[in-house]
Amino acid sequence: MSNFTIIPLEGGLANVEGFYCDAVNVGMRPNSDQGDVAFIRSKDPCDIAAVFTTNRFQAAPIQHFQRYGEDFQTDFVLINAKNANAMTGEKGIEDIDTIMSTLSHKLTVTNPVMSSTGVIGYRLPIDKITSAFDNFDFNAKNSHKAARAIMTTDSFEKELAYRIKLEDGSHFHLAAICKGAGMINPAMATMLCFIITDANIPKADMDALLHEGTEHSFNRISVDGDTSTNDTVMLLANKESGIYHKEAFAKALKDMMFDLAMMILKDGEGANKLVAFEVKGAKSDKEAKIAATALSNSLLVKTALFGEDPNWGRIASTIGASGVTCNDKTLTIHYDDLLIYSDTFRELDKEREDQAYKIMKQEQFTVTCDLGIGEGSYTAYGCDLSYEYVKINAEYRT
Amino acid sequence: MSNFTIIPLEGGLANVEGFYCDAVNVGMRPNSDQGDVAFIRSKDPCDIAAVFTTNRFQAAPIQHFQRYGEDFQTDFVLINAKNANAMTGEKGIEDIDTIMSTLSHKLTVTNPVMSSTGVIGYRLPIDKITSAFDNFDFNAKNSHKAARAIMTTDSFEKELAYRIKLEDGSHFHLAAICKGAGMINPAMATMLCFIITDANIPKADMDALLHEGTEHSFNRISVDGDTSTNDTVMLLANKESGIYHKEAFAKALKDMMFDLAMMILKDGEGANKLVAFEVKGAKSDKEAKIAATALSNSLLVKTALFGEDPNWGRIASTIGASGVTCNDKTLTIHYDDLLIYSDTFRELDKEREDQAYKIMKQEQFTVTCDLGIGEGSYTAYGCDLSYEYVKINAEYRT
Repeated sequence: MSNFTIIPLEGGLANVEGFYCDAVNVGMRPNSDQGDVAFIRSKDPCDIAAVFTTNRFQAAPIQHFQRYGEDFQTDFVLINAKNANAMTGEKGIEDIDTIMSTLSHKLTVTNPVMSSTGVIGYRLPIDKITSAFDNFDFNAKNSHKAARAIMTTDSFEKELAYRIKLEDGSHFHLAAICKGAGMINPAMATMLCFIITDANIPKADMDALLHEGTEHSFNRISVDGDTSTNDTVMLLANKESGIYHKEAFAKALKDMMFDLAMMILKDGEGANKLVAFEVKGAKSDKEAKIAATALSNSLLVKTALFGEDPNWGRIASTIGASGVTCNDKTLTIHYDDLLIYSDTFRELDKEREDQAYKIMKQEQFTVTCDLGIGEGSYTAYGCDLSYEYVKINAEYRT
Repeated sequence: MSNFTIIPLEGGLANVEGFYCDAVNVGMRPNSDQGDVAFIRSKDPCDIAAVFTTNRFQAAPIQHFQRYGEDFQTDFVLINAKNANAMTGEKGIEDIDTIMSTLSHKLTVTNPVMSSTGVIGYRLPIDKITSAFDNFDFNAKNSHKAARAIMTTDSFEKELAYRIKLEDGSHFHLAAICKGAGMINPAMATMLCFIITDANIPKADMDALLHEGTEHSFNRISVDGDTSTNDTVMLLANKESGIYHKEAFAKALKDMMFDLAMMILKDGEGANKLVAFEVKGAKSDKEAKIAATALSNSLLVKTALFGEDPNWGRIASTIGASGVTCNDKTLTIHYDDLLIYSDTFRELDKEREDQAYKIMKQEQFTVTCDLGIGEGSYTAYGCDLSYEYVKINAEYRT
């Protein structure tokens, strides 16, 4: 196994060679110093890989992107908040062309793409958006401003950057900005993620690794089972460094996407806890995924987490309701290393209940459910659901 | 078509010949005048039909019931709140036998059955529950007390009674008590429904009509997609009246179950509105059901209802996310009779938005989504989701 080092860096997108970014406020967020339109561009055209929402009503920017065909290069991504440009029909796609046509008078761009988040069902304010082109600094590296501009209900910016150093001293970079979904309001708070790299990565690896990374990160976090019209994960590679190492890149991308997913979870509206739901011993990986996802999505479970109520009944009930093969005689449930349910240990005694409380008071912990049936396993990630209404439910048992 | 009249009556279960009911407080609800254990009994053994939860972990009372085999008669149903007797294993079933054995010293009973609601994972307090047998009035007709005793987070008792009068002047009765599910907390607030009749109904009709009625009522209301370990709908027929008319009985049962389901919805925690989600023009009835159920379960949609926000984007997004065949060019959305979205009418103008606000201010209204694809249709029923946390989301767009 070859050696490489992944070094976290401050400064987000600014670390990656040949990329520029900026954001301005064009009046879609009135009376705010927070931007509402941002761009990410590369001085040379980039290969691009993308994963989009599975929602049948894909927003106009996604349809616009797909019209470029399978393999195209781009050097410009325009991003706006406050308006999703979704369910706007052919006009919504034409609006993007109009905007990009205006852009081309200011800057030479190749196959520019767009990404939007906000309210569904309204045409983009074209004049406002194109006014950004007079105010952008196209040679800036204002990663933080861009990360802030794409936020909706997010309470903090999400940006990460890594330098990946290889054994021979050469290195390349990977960086990302990302915005999350409010826990209650996912389709209004689309998940957008833009990852850029100067690694000399082949297009085939970009596609494969981005899909694999998505499956291990954003697809494993609970957004209440809803999928927005706009969800987008993009990877842009301008190859500027000339350096590539597949194993190192794969590890760095996977880590980065996982960390971004955890940042989204932590920023779930009112969320206080991050919980890994590990299901093992399932009949198949598929059944493990069904059960784990059901746990991370369950309001029952989320309210119990908030109430720090070691009520494993909600865990068991949710597994049973998910329809997977299970048996109360072979099932075991652990909170971290604490056995909380098994066939011979069904009723929680005071001592274990106190231990469970301590575990649940942590900001992060793991709920492991071994179904004791087969070899299938899957881990999904969720958070608690707070607010006064939840309090009512969390206190139900007392 | 023959004539019959369905006459609503006050007094719930008390109206049905040969049935008795009562409730007492045995200390499971401390310091309360509300009962926690109730019974429904018939002077003669009844045929019984039942529909139980699809949760893989069925509670002990359901397993106990099923041990009597396919066709059995019973004259006694014991119901307790505060403890679900779920995930209690073989011991939980033995506990019911112990309780019923104690009962048999007080009263001659045939195949007594039990039904429980409350917290999962604790053994029943046998001594407390059997103490009820010293305090029950076995010849009472205290329907209201029984309806109140089986409540968990319900804010009002749910009881209904009908006299069904046939053309020749003869009649029979149908009555029910029922408890609902808190909107956020379904598995802790099991849906239980007990329907009794003195109609001379054949067992085959009982089974068929109860399943059909469940499909058109309780299976169409949103309980957040969760299914408890204890959900139970029972129909008991003691045939006392000697009268039966299939068409009349079917209509009365269907109406009663539908009305009970609507009562449960109205009593959803913090719910203010009752909304019918009608999906038509779907590729198949199955796809219509998937889309309608997704709408009634969606937190996005529920929060928009609470916020009285005529944001059809959430409706469209939820349909798209449900994965059914759909097309934004053939889709239309109506709130009651108001067209709110179509291909040629995508953006909501001020006038229609004002009209939509008025519709959404009503306590009940219908959202109709015509997918414009085929002939499939289905209607599901949901309610809004209120509380302060929802307010935050409802106000997101402003």
